[in-house]
Amino acid sequence: MRDDLDPRLVEPPYPLQRHLGMALTAWSDGAARVEAPITEMLMNRQGLPHGGIHATLLDSALGYAGCYTGDPARKQMALTLSLTISYVGQPTGTRLIAEGRVTGGGRKTYFAEGRLLDDHGALLATATGVFKYRSPA
Amino acid sequence: MRDDLDPRLVEPPYPLQRHLGMALTAWSDGAARVEAPITEMLMNRQGLPHGGIHATLLDSALGYAGCYTGDPARKQMALTLSLTISYVGQPTGTRLIAEGRVTGGGRKTYFAEGRLLDDHGALLATATGVFKYRSPA
Amino acid sequence: MRDDLDPRLVEPPYPLQRHLGMALTAWSDGAARVEAPITEMLMNRQGLPHGGIHATLLDSALGYAGCYTGDPARKQMALTLSLTISYVGQPTGTRLIAEGRVTGGGRKTYFAEGRLLDDHGALLATATGVFKYRSPA
Amino acid sequence: MRDDLDPRLVEPPYPLQRHLGMALTAWSDGAARVEAPITEMLMNRQGLPHGGIHATLLDSALGYAGCYTGDPARKQMALTLSLTISYVGQPTGTRLIAEGRVTGGGRKTYFAEGRLLDDHGALLATATGVFKYRSPA
Repeated sequence: MRDDLDPRLVEPPYPLQRHLGMALTAWSDGAARVEAPITEMLMNRQGLPHGGIHATLLDSALGYAGCYTGDPARKQMALTLSLTISYVGQPTGTRLIAEGRVTGGGRKTYFAEGRLLDDHGALLATATGVFKYRSPA
Repeated sequence: MRDDLDPRLVEPPYPLQRHLGMALTAWSDGAARVEAPITEMLMNRQGLPHGGIHATLLDSALGYAGCYTGDPARKQMALTLSLTISYVGQPTGTRLIAEGRVTGGGRKTYFAEGRLLDDHGALLATATGVFKYRSPA
Repeated sequence: MRDDLDPRLVEPPYPLQRHLGMALTAWSDGAARVEAPITEMLMNRQGLPHGGIHATLLDSALGYAGCYTGDPARKQMALTLSLTISYVGQPTGTRLIAEGRVTGGGRKTYFAEGRLLDDHGALLATATGVFKYRSPA
Repeated sequence: MRDDLDPRLVEPPYPLQRHLGMALTAWSDGAARVEAPITEMLMNRQGLPHGGIHATLLDSALGYAGCYTGDPARKQMALTLSLTISYVGQPTGTRLIAEGRVTGGGRKTYFAEGRLLDDHGALLATATGVFKYRSPA
């Protein structure tokens, strides 16, 4: 993945992004990275990050991965059709890092996969998803 | 599903539950229901509830469904191994209602499925998952 | 599910259907049932029906469920985008019975879910899938 | 993946393996490859390889990936708990090649992912799965 984010493409955070502390930190054609610090508010009944948080970050990274245009005036949107998360491990670090990558598709739908790591490099989850492009506004 | 919640089983909300406004509203042997109002903070880049929210509510409902003991002093916990969400429709109402149900399994792992509806009865998502029991503390 | 199959809709078996002994045994608007006897040729390295057989029968039942037209001259086809199988139990009977049902969707894609039972009523697997309609020939 | 197969580990084909023409062609610690020629008997109602075949090959490759012992006298078996297939593309070649790789897990369960390619290198499908080890016989 190209490890940077064109500052012209940075958008104001949408509501859930702000509410959970997520940020898009890399975005290029077919790839994206979304991160969030592991904070108390993300914890489940057992004191671990809730599985829904893994899903939220991975859905975001896979979604962005298919919607890169490189042009801040031309925004592509997509809807998730299906998302599968495998919960492989638990974090030891302080940040959640979701990386998404497009694996195929066409003009109407696309496939993506991704991984959720922590900042120590531990693998927390893997994901695959199918997405549908929305027509431009 | 038995449509009630024994008040003795009500636990103080865990952090993400409080942060997103989720509540467990029904819990019986093999079934659970988790709800949240559709509020601005749940919205994604397109002004729709973020797909991660569907996953969070469904992961919660499916997880609770397999962990009912009926005894507030004996808490059963589980870890999600795998979760798949199908995003079937979009809400027209004001609440998200996730219902989970155990479909099988044994002493170590269990299978569950569920649905996310809104308060108008519209089907928003379906889910299936595999879970692993944690040993009692 | 309407428990029958209009004889006018019976098609000659396609190659894999014949090779595995599968048959479509019920088909109505939004629902389908596909069955196969449990024979030696379906067995895996452990002497159990191979998990790919569960997937084959469920993919077939979910696929047919979304492609009913009621008109033998107007065949609707679909491609599977994504399929998830949960392997809930093992058979005690002699037949595999996959039932599929459409849960939602529109003109281009649809969602379906299903169950694989044996002829003793044991639940062997559950499935969810997303499908894309092909244009009529 | 180590691109070979220790001839001491070659087992007589199990029934479905023989019936579909599948062969294990590479096997090492945490990885496996399973192949089959694209023959008429694998075709679906539309003249394409049936989606259940993708699932069969991928379930096999992911399953073998977690069961390598290197010792023909010590066979490890596993049961699939959950399997998700994304159907990314269609073949242009003459062979189906499924590659599986373990991504994590422990003594009781493991996670694996894989890809189905054809012999032209086209990506046909991706898979993720969760598996449960069986106790040694």
